[in-house]
Amino acid sequence: MKIDVNSDMGEGFGVYQLCDDAALMKVVSSANIACGFHAGDPAIMTRMVRLAKENGVGIGAHPGLPDRQGFGRRELPFSAEEICQQVAYQLGALTAIAQAEGTKVSHFSFHAAMGNIVNRDEALAQQVMALIARINPDLIVFAQPDTIIERAAQQVGLKTLTLFLADRAYDAQGRLVPRGIAGSVIKEETALRARVRQFLQHGTVTTFEGEEISVRARSILVHSDTPGSLALATIVRSEIEASGHQVAPAAEVVAQ
Amino acid sequence: MKIDVNSDMGEGFGVYQLCDDAALMKVVSSANIACGFHAGDPAIMTRMVRLAKENGVGIGAHPGLPDRQGFGRRELPFSAEEICQQVAYQLGALTAIAQAEGTKVSHFSFHAAMGNIVNRDEALAQQVMALIARINPDLIVFAQPDTIIERAAQQVGLKTLTLFLADRAYDAQGRLVPRGIAGSVIKEETALRARVRQFLQHGTVTTFEGEEISVRARSILVHSDTPGSLALATIVRSEIEASGHQVAPAAEVVAQ
Amino acid sequence: MKIDVNSDMGEGFGVYQLCDDAALMKVVSSANIACGFHAGDPAIMTRMVRLAKENGVGIGAHPGLPDRQGFGRRELPFSAEEICQQVAYQLGALTAIAQAEGTKVSHFSFHAAMGNIVNRDEALAQQVMALIARINPDLIVFAQPDTIIERAAQQVGLKTLTLFLADRAYDAQGRLVPRGIAGSVIKEETALRARVRQFLQHGTVTTFEGEEISVRARSILVHSDTPGSLALATIVRSEIEASGHQVAPAAEVVAQ
Amino acid sequence: MKIDVNSDMGEGFGVYQLCDDAALMKVVSSANIACGFHAGDPAIMTRMVRLAKENGVGIGAHPGLPDRQGFGRRELPFSAEEICQQVAYQLGALTAIAQAEGTKVSHFSFHAAMGNIVNRDEALAQQVMALIARINPDLIVFAQPDTIIERAAQQVGLKTLTLFLADRAYDAQGRLVPRGIAGSVIKEETALRARVRQFLQHGTVTTFEGEEISVRARSILVHSDTPGSLALATIVRSEIEASGHQVAPAAEVVAQ
Repeated sequence: MKIDVNSDMGEGFGVYQLCDDAALMKVVSSANIACGFHAGDPAIMTRMVRLAKENGVGIGAHPGLPDRQGFGRRELPFSAEEICQQVAYQLGALTAIAQAEGTKVSHFSFHAAMGNIVNRDEALAQQVMALIARINPDLIVFAQPDTIIERAAQQVGLKTLTLFLADRAYDAQGRLVPRGIAGSVIKEETALRARVRQFLQHGTVTTFEGEEISVRARSILVHSDTPGSLALATIVRSEIEASGHQVAPAAEVVAQ
Repeated sequence: MKIDVNSDMGEGFGVYQLCDDAALMKVVSSANIACGFHAGDPAIMTRMVRLAKENGVGIGAHPGLPDRQGFGRRELPFSAEEICQQVAYQLGALTAIAQAEGTKVSHFSFHAAMGNIVNRDEALAQQVMALIARINPDLIVFAQPDTIIERAAQQVGLKTLTLFLADRAYDAQGRLVPRGIAGSVIKEETALRARVRQFLQHGTVTTFEGEEISVRARSILVHSDTPGSLALATIVRSEIEASGHQVAPAAEVVAQ
Repeated sequence: MKIDVNSDMGEGFGVYQLCDDAALMKVVSSANIACGFHAGDPAIMTRMVRLAKENGVGIGAHPGLPDRQGFGRRELPFSAEEICQQVAYQLGALTAIAQAEGTKVSHFSFHAAMGNIVNRDEALAQQVMALIARINPDLIVFAQPDTIIERAAQQVGLKTLTLFLADRAYDAQGRLVPRGIAGSVIKEETALRARVRQFLQHGTVTTFEGEEISVRARSILVHSDTPGSLALATIVRSEIEASGHQVAPAAEVVAQ
Repeated sequence: MKIDVNSDMGEGFGVYQLCDDAALMKVVSSANIACGFHAGDPAIMTRMVRLAKENGVGIGAHPGLPDRQGFGRRELPFSAEEICQQVAYQLGALTAIAQAEGTKVSHFSFHAAMGNIVNRDEALAQQVMALIARINPDLIVFAQPDTIIERAAQQVGLKTLTLFLADRAYDAQGRLVPRGIAGSVIKEETALRARVRQFLQHGTVTTFEGEEISVRARSILVHSDTPGSLALATIVRSEIEASGHQVAPAAEVVAQ
């Protein structure tokens, strides 16, 4: 089976870098590239597109709220219309940079607060997904399983790819345990390997409370903005390969 | 004969407006829409695209240097690569906003310092035009006649539309007299009407020095950021119609 | 009696202007100068300080949230600490520009959302006022009468000056009728003159509901970002002078 | 003898950090704090001021050109007036943040391109120094020895402190060998220690060409934006202490 490994990339700005994008690009199969609002700029976006192309990595738009200082993590009071306009602007910008480099954008993944806002407002989610479908009906939308975003994307005929977050604890309802809570982020290598292996073999995760629940996902998200992200991605990739699966970009995973 | 009347539009930001875009959109046939770097933002761009669509006005990308405070008029030290990346980013952003509104970008017109930098560097001009052709080979590039930009566009197979600036004095070589010089900007209505009429009837302009030279142009540019721009555009339009010509967007002018 | 006429000034950015600051500066006695976050920049601030100095107008810091696109009108989710830091930064910036021009900042007036946030949080208001007192204990804080801001300023020993908004309807509790409601903004000249006269003669305003209530204020605020602000300021000034009072900057009004 | 060790600090932005400011603050004696134009923001500036205060480190304003994307390293075409306004704005902002924290700014050190522009224009340097003297006549200006900046500061009566760059090669004229040239940056620990020791014992440096020239300096600058800056600062400090000198902030060095 083909499994995607994705990470947020190009989230630097000017002289600033959040992670070693060039190294990480050799490990992941899909790159969610920041589009210049919460992070990134035309030069970084171009560099990311080139690295992705060189490494056979799928290119995704990773739009965020226009809030560089808050890194797109603050929920700012934008209207539904404004969020749609921000999505179109950023998706278009990356699309043209990919075209200029002789390649194309193949998936879409919200960043932080923008994703949270869309994911709790069904009407907004449908509006954004209809807009994405008008701009590029071939895009694959990344989503947590059984969310408003997943359903809205499917309703307008967009393909979706669901995510498993190997380094985050899940609760009994299959939701992420908030970062504030102790134990919500799994950092220990043996535990991480075990979680990835269990997901690959059984399609399940053991919840925070100790129960085993099924996880419908075909892509594993590795957070790039935490120390050790490169090591984590390498662990995830090696476990996928060790278990007889194949790491492949979103487009191949969806097509299989 | 079809003649285009174009103007730079959507050059506000947030609460700021440079001209009455809604009124001007009823007079021009092509709108050069700022793309969020020197001016404009996703909300203004969307509003401009809607106004253009409603009024049958051609939509053009009007990218500038990333310099809101200097309104894209300062020549900042960007590399050729950076300028290409900035062009791709902005062109893509407007393209997607147009797609989201069910329409498309049909022309391209540089703003201020970005245009000046490109227009004196043949290698850069060719690089930018090749990039535009990769992103959208159907775009019509606006240019002063016999310039580096016009030639570079044609070399990569892009269509071009040449401009006449009715309110600016020309010298014997057909170049614009710099704004600093007295008499470089024509503001008086009778004089303006006479210039537009002469251009329409004879394809000529009387230079600063008093000589009549031919002007190869099919579009008249009206500066929107000067007081009286709306009146000027209205004069231009009425003179075109009075002389038996037809005001039409760039795409129709080029196609005739 | 001395009465102050104040207005928000220098709220442009780069090529953008919101009002004719130079003309308005000849009419008001106190200028609330934007400090570069919601509007303004070092060049505009310097120009405003010079104009104020030339015209004997009192210089005030008019800090806002760091939100140029939203003109400081959106309530962004900043912590109390962040708001304090933003106030200090902006107040200091204007203070140094005034010192560079051989003059000084004499008053303080919040802009829009920043003021609204502070004015409904007693702890925050006290924190901000304590901070202002540490930076410049001689500043006069502008406030609506009987508000959290007025009380917090007085508690730390700062002088205050209370405002009357001549062009805004008041309700029975002496609060402003929200802008959305019909009749909340008074634009008609005769009505405006009558309101200013009544305020000057009787210290009262006739509420939205028709009742006469007292208004404890010594400064009249003229909104500069509405069309006709210059005319309104001129009306206010002429009424003050016609009624035998004297227009004077905040420092003189407070000292009398 | 007292010797100062200084470094540029707080040059992050939002989530981005350039160095471990908290650790470096325990080693240096003077911190040149970015003021929000090329880097830094009110929150970071406040954090730096607190760290400096806690560690007995001298607080310096480190203003740069308004160019976050270029990190203040690009020479942008600002007028002399604009540079003066930018200096005043930033110096004032940090001054007020220091006052809010119960402390004060004691020195001034230009960042990158702003410094380069000022340092080759005698008229501009005098204009800026006169402005600084009007804002705070007690500030100590950091400068390379025998430069336009040093002379201009002294002409208006400002104290100065001259710098030795331990990790940079000097030429026969006492100027820094440009970064592009091989060997211009000294990274090897033994070599570094030897240079610091030679400077402390003999007040000299061995040039790129092998000659020993005298270096008139009382402060050693450690670049914080290079990997290993913390180790370098620690080496510098330990060599100063091992040689019987004392590490002390600029104010104490100047006063001795």
